[in-house]
Amino acid sequence: MSLRDEAAELDALDPLAGKRAEFDLDPELSYLDGNSLGAPPRGVATRMAAVVSEQWGRRLIRSWDEGWWDAPERIGDRIAPLAGAGPGQVVVGDSTTVNLFKAVVAAARLNPGRPEILLDAGTFPTDGYIAESAARLTGHTVRRVPVAEMASAAGSRTALALVNHVDYVTGALHDLPGITAALHSAGALAVWDLCHSVGAVPVRLDAAGVDLAVGCTYKFLNGGPGSPAFLYVARKWLPSFDQPLTGWAGHADPFGMTPEYSGRTGISRGRTGTPDILSMLALDAALDVWGDVTIEQVRAKGLALGDFFLKCVDALVPGARVVTPRDHGRGNQISLAWPDAKTAMATLIERGVIGDFRPPEVLRFGLAALYVRYGDVLRAVEELRALR
Amino acid sequence: MSLRDEAAELDALDPLAGKRAEFDLDPELSYLDGNSLGAPPRGVATRMAAVVSEQWGRRLIRSWDEGWWDAPERIGDRIAPLAGAGPGQVVVGDSTTVNLFKAVVAAARLNPGRPEILLDAGTFPTDGYIAESAARLTGHTVRRVPVAEMASAAGSRTALALVNHVDYVTGALHDLPGITAALHSAGALAVWDLCHSVGAVPVRLDAAGVDLAVGCTYKFLNGGPGSPAFLYVARKWLPSFDQPLTGWAGHADPFGMTPEYSGRTGISRGRTGTPDILSMLALDAALDVWGDVTIEQVRAKGLALGDFFLKCVDALVPGARVVTPRDHGRGNQISLAWPDAKTAMATLIERGVIGDFRPPEVLRFGLAALYVRYGDVLRAVEELRALR
Repeated sequence: MSLRDEAAELDALDPLAGKRAEFDLDPELSYLDGNSLGAPPRGVATRMAAVVSEQWGRRLIRSWDEGWWDAPERIGDRIAPLAGAGPGQVVVGDSTTVNLFKAVVAAARLNPGRPEILLDAGTFPTDGYIAESAARLTGHTVRRVPVAEMASAAGSRTALALVNHVDYVTGALHDLPGITAALHSAGALAVWDLCHSVGAVPVRLDAAGVDLAVGCTYKFLNGGPGSPAFLYVARKWLPSFDQPLTGWAGHADPFGMTPEYSGRTGISRGRTGTPDILSMLALDAALDVWGDVTIEQVRAKGLALGDFFLKCVDALVPGARVVTPRDHGRGNQISLAWPDAKTAMATLIERGVIGDFRPPEVLRFGLAALYVRYGDVLRAVEELRALR
Repeated sequence: MSLRDEAAELDALDPLAGKRAEFDLDPELSYLDGNSLGAPPRGVATRMAAVVSEQWGRRLIRSWDEGWWDAPERIGDRIAPLAGAGPGQVVVGDSTTVNLFKAVVAAARLNPGRPEILLDAGTFPTDGYIAESAARLTGHTVRRVPVAEMASAAGSRTALALVNHVDYVTGALHDLPGITAALHSAGALAVWDLCHSVGAVPVRLDAAGVDLAVGCTYKFLNGGPGSPAFLYVARKWLPSFDQPLTGWAGHADPFGMTPEYSGRTGISRGRTGTPDILSMLALDAALDVWGDVTIEQVRAKGLALGDFFLKCVDALVPGARVVTPRDHGRGNQISLAWPDAKTAMATLIERGVIGDFRPPEVLRFGLAALYVRYGDVLRAVEELRALR
């Protein structure tokens, strides 16, 4: 069977094929950048129009009591099942960067007397910048450790480790339960960055006993460009969770306007300032696409898309260097080391295949299972062949 | 002339009367809560639809290079004239709370060796919570001082003072140039919170030599519920501005993905994580209403609305306790101490007059000059009379 026939058959048999119609996506594009910016679910435009014209326009300030004020916790509880979290442990708001700052400072405070923060050496840069900035304020030092050595690196000096669940360059999936257990054995807390795993890979925060986590909603959750991030705090830490961005929206009595800060009970103390409602409710609408699918279905298709991608690479661009694990120890992207990758990606994009470029010379292709077709994968590799 | 005739005449002669048509506002309402949530400019709904369907939906990730990435600085420069700031000193993003944290920590670092932060004793709570949290991390102490005593309270131990330009309860307008000069005489930095002044009162940050400032865009700038806040850093401090939320979007080479943080030149180093584009561009559209008006016109009408409010109070609810300065030493709200104010406001809202309540027993009425009519003011006070 030709690759073209195989792609057509895989698309015809795909149990998630119908989900693509729920996205407003140019049919002429092979869009393989959902690991950077998810495509817009159709429901978002409708919801935005209603929020602006009806809620803001007609109900005005009254809308704060009609669903706006509690949106961060309510939407957090919608994301929670995708992260393996029970209710009341996830809150939405602020950027990933800002939530990382809350999480690192809070984790350092939860585990006093230990002067060191371990950092995933291949981390997305912002995690490292924030770990260093938090450490400067709390008096900790940051030590960068390859993830493979994280379990053995943790010791009696380690307050916490900040680790990415999926490496943003290679797409490697890290062993969240195993590393978490090893950190706990050393008395350290585990803080996970789920940006490249949530919505692509089953995440089981509660089961693994993860302490704190942050995640992004504009990649595989399709919340829109720069949509609000989320923060997870394990139930056992909620009473003592002590984060530095003590805004009025996280106060026990936000409208009491008292001069002393007292954090609200539960995950609400992860809130900071007035929630950004337009973006928050765009995300809320975007999450509707998860109503009739499971993360296991999405994972299965994501892996199958990746396997087909690799098969196409081997057939059409043999010898190309695949930097993503070929076994299933990966998230939901395939990355290739490619000569002059930046120029190569610009050419692919001109030809309607959208992935992205990351230094030093890596082409990334995201495989968002809710809307990527096997035909999109084949087309991408065909265009790669044309570059040679 | 009856108050009703006077209101009609004032509305007929109002040079800004035509601006109201640019807002999507229920004609049946007397909406006097623009100091809490500005009304939606009509252009916002149209712009949101285009951003979601065209920019996000059609251009996808390419939109980052087509106006998204630079939106925080570009929109900052649109706000700058309303704050009396030259270009390149204002950046939009994050909440007011988060920007306060950046500003307080950065100001403390800019003025080392001084252990004390002075805080406006009547401050909006979040300013105090953040000042305390920042002080806990930087080793400073916070001392609360009435604004009237701020100039004399600053001394050789004072690193900075955080002061509100307009008091959120009373509406009193504080002496920004005078207090700033007094702080500077003591060697302290001046950090101003403009939430209740920007878009209502001329603010002259550069002329007054203010060091740092933050402001809100969802009140008199009509950016939408929880829309992104802004941060001002005086030009002379830009090279040494050292803020703690060191995210990738503020990095000198954000797409270089280097492990060490190095802040970008200029105001961009006030950025943190990925900018929240839907809310950012809603604000951008909302700012279009300022194209053909000056802040001086808005100020003149705001004061005239307030004067008429006070005249109606004296005529219709004589003896009511006005807590806002009757002279023009006020921002753009009138506040009344009123028995059982919370219940009273609920009744007013049922009757179509929307203001708000703040503890202990204060009714607030905001007078957003771009859409509030003199008739709205009279109606509010008539409904107050009916409560007696």
